[in-house]
Amino acid sequence: MAERLVVIGGDAAGMSAASQARRMRRADDLEIIVFEQSAYVSYSACGEPYFVGGWIEDFGDLQVRTPEQFQARGIDARIHHQVTGIDLDARRVTVQHSGGEETVGYDQLLYATGATAIRPPIQGIDLEGVHTLRTLDDAARLRSLVTSRPERAVVVGGGYIGLEIAEAFEHVGIHTTVVTMMPTVLERTLDPDMAELVSDRMRSMGIHVETGIKVECIAANAGRVAGVGCDDRSFPADLVVLALGSRPHVDLAKAAGIPLGPTGAVAVDDHQRTETDGVWSAGDCAEAHHRISGQPVNLHLGTVANKAGRVAGINLGGGDATFPGVLGTAITKVGDLEISSTGLTEWQAAEAGLKAVAARIKSSTAAHYWPGSSPMTVKAVAERDTARLLGAQIVGGPGAGKRIDIFATAMWSELPAHELAWTDLSYAPPFSGVWDPVHIAARKAGERALS
Amino acid sequence: MAERLVVIGGDAAGMSAASQARRMRRADDLEIIVFEQSAYVSYSACGEPYFVGGWIEDFGDLQVRTPEQFQARGIDARIHHQVTGIDLDARRVTVQHSGGEETVGYDQLLYATGATAIRPPIQGIDLEGVHTLRTLDDAARLRSLVTSRPERAVVVGGGYIGLEIAEAFEHVGIHTTVVTMMPTVLERTLDPDMAELVSDRMRSMGIHVETGIKVECIAANAGRVAGVGCDDRSFPADLVVLALGSRPHVDLAKAAGIPLGPTGAVAVDDHQRTETDGVWSAGDCAEAHHRISGQPVNLHLGTVANKAGRVAGINLGGGDATFPGVLGTAITKVGDLEISSTGLTEWQAAEAGLKAVAARIKSSTAAHYWPGSSPMTVKAVAERDTARLLGAQIVGGPGAGKRIDIFATAMWSELPAHELAWTDLSYAPPFSGVWDPVHIAARKAGERALS
Repeated sequence: MAERLVVIGGDAAGMSAASQARRMRRADDLEIIVFEQSAYVSYSACGEPYFVGGWIEDFGDLQVRTPEQFQARGIDARIHHQVTGIDLDARRVTVQHSGGEETVGYDQLLYATGATAIRPPIQGIDLEGVHTLRTLDDAARLRSLVTSRPERAVVVGGGYIGLEIAEAFEHVGIHTTVVTMMPTVLERTLDPDMAELVSDRMRSMGIHVETGIKVECIAANAGRVAGVGCDDRSFPADLVVLALGSRPHVDLAKAAGIPLGPTGAVAVDDHQRTETDGVWSAGDCAEAHHRISGQPVNLHLGTVANKAGRVAGINLGGGDATFPGVLGTAITKVGDLEISSTGLTEWQAAEAGLKAVAARIKSSTAAHYWPGSSPMTVKAVAERDTARLLGAQIVGGPGAGKRIDIFATAMWSELPAHELAWTDLSYAPPFSGVWDPVHIAARKAGERALS
Repeated sequence: MAERLVVIGGDAAGMSAASQARRMRRADDLEIIVFEQSAYVSYSACGEPYFVGGWIEDFGDLQVRTPEQFQARGIDARIHHQVTGIDLDARRVTVQHSGGEETVGYDQLLYATGATAIRPPIQGIDLEGVHTLRTLDDAARLRSLVTSRPERAVVVGGGYIGLEIAEAFEHVGIHTTVVTMMPTVLERTLDPDMAELVSDRMRSMGIHVETGIKVECIAANAGRVAGVGCDDRSFPADLVVLALGSRPHVDLAKAAGIPLGPTGAVAVDDHQRTETDGVWSAGDCAEAHHRISGQPVNLHLGTVANKAGRVAGINLGGGDATFPGVLGTAITKVGDLEISSTGLTEWQAAEAGLKAVAARIKSSTAAHYWPGSSPMTVKAVAERDTARLLGAQIVGGPGAGKRIDIFATAMWSELPAHELAWTDLSYAPPFSGVWDPVHIAARKAGERALS
């Protein structure tokens, strides 16, 4: 009789794992059932702001594959199925769906529930016109709202999602304000000196940026949202989006007794096994090992979810894969300003107890005389005395952002800053100066670290 | 009394070295004289095709610094000074200039004469209308010719420079044909399966590409060029550019007895010292160690010249720098098609006696649904059994080409293909799929190497 794998959560990690396990084991050897509470499996959350802004017109583009496509591959993907309980001793889950409730046994369980948008207890948070953006339904709802052209929107939160929504709103002609309690935007991935470049650009695009403001109240008018803030520091709005980050969806795991780690996400080993026999976890709900800090982290990134899902799938499929850890590499854009980072910021390095030095250089995306050349600022963070690269940040015009991958690859390989400075990177006037901005930043960081 | 450094050749390597040495040693400790036979020092040869094509309008943009600027920094840069002989025993050079001939003694000599365009003994090569593109004077001459709009041009040679000139001619509305004796364009840096993508694009832009044709005769009409080829396979032309590569300028070194290496360029150690005491060499005229093949090579790349010059300069300045070798990373474009490569092609790997496998994948520069997404083809070459990366090639739309630097950094660090496949590279829909094309190619190459 076939073994049965039950997957809770049908997005990136869950479906990557299911697909990989299916490639390695036939259906008569491994039955795979995926329970997904929403109407969608395997969707691109990262594409949602671009759907809201209208760059992506077809809602179907956000769905990488349909349940039917998975069914055709021998994966029993069931949408609108919500798992409400896990019985670890009996190895079964309780599932609710339109037909009622059932229990389904498993031999192996993959816990891939993802994360949910944070909704802090702010007064007025449940008013009509206050939204979050996480699920495809959220995206569809926001898209339909923006096409009716609200006049003014406030985005609460200055992280990646907040900025991407603000860009989307600005793009469709909504007067937009970003409000963050932090002193700068993108404070988790950029040091303040780099973040300033981003907020400056946002302001020049017409997006208002208000930092250092803690939102404790959302104002109402006739039962509908009227603005953010209820005192003299308030921002009128017809539409409010809370982009305050997300937290791992661990309620079920907690209730069942699957151990969590120090971050509050599910603890896993490098094979994506939890501490509970037969239970695996991957994606936004699970921890990952940070290659620079050496600490467990809980990053909600599609790249991490896909990789961890694949690792789980290979291991469930009878192979032996090790999740190699993360650097937290990420990229976004505001208009044509590209923003990327990897590893630790200067202050995160200090917080992690590392002795860090940093170098920030201003250069250009191409030869300075090339007509399409844009300014590009690169910051490299290195460990004092060893010049080990701890992190990097890039803000610049087209072609700037993806250069973060050079740093990420160097950091992955433990290539120190002063050696990255001499690597054989590509050059032609339309693409860079003869010394790439990455070289220059790495050299300066190396010199500071070793001086 | 100050030591005297004489530099022969005032372009990338020579001026990098001079600048670096000057930063480290004051003028009363080290006198620096640079002899440059042309009217320019420190110019961007790589920018020349873009000046010819009119993207760069200001001729001055091709000159990174003027002789006067070097003078102001304490570097005695003398243009129109041609070194005609080196006396190694007496440690002096003979120099010709408008004022006559003189001999100048040196304590240290940097031989940085660069390379010269290859002009094979083709019948008709000296006809009016037949050009090469190497020096700034060549660029100025060609620019002035194209503005008078010749009707038809033939570029002989399908390497980087040939393609860049062809793109420039096409850009200004000249009917252009590229003729190469090789079976494909870019045969030194791309395998045929990748090169086809480039010639297809060139043809779709209206550039004629004729492969497998050895040019043995340039036809004349009334003492002027009339076409390339004198038999039935001929191509009419008002303007012919020979882009047949360049050879290291070693005549002076050879005459003086400075030892050359197996490539025919000046042999140097990893400090840029020649085998002759007190004589250094860097740039296009000197060899460099190839990190993948382990062999000495003679690459004519601005990146290599700048790095080798800096190494020589640090060592001449009293420091201790090691030239770390090259991968031969390079990038160019034809229209908006970006083309890049690093390391060895599949056939070069075979030629070097390495057991190579390759994987070629088709993906896109951004998420497939992103409106600006373009096709992107990546080929990774790895060593059988070890999965050591030997090389990579990329051909694709905007954003594709610079990804070669990820491979270059991985190869530099000896990160094998199957490990590069799991690195934490940046992702957002405007920039890539959740698995970057680099990941996918590396994974497939790794699987083939290890299977």
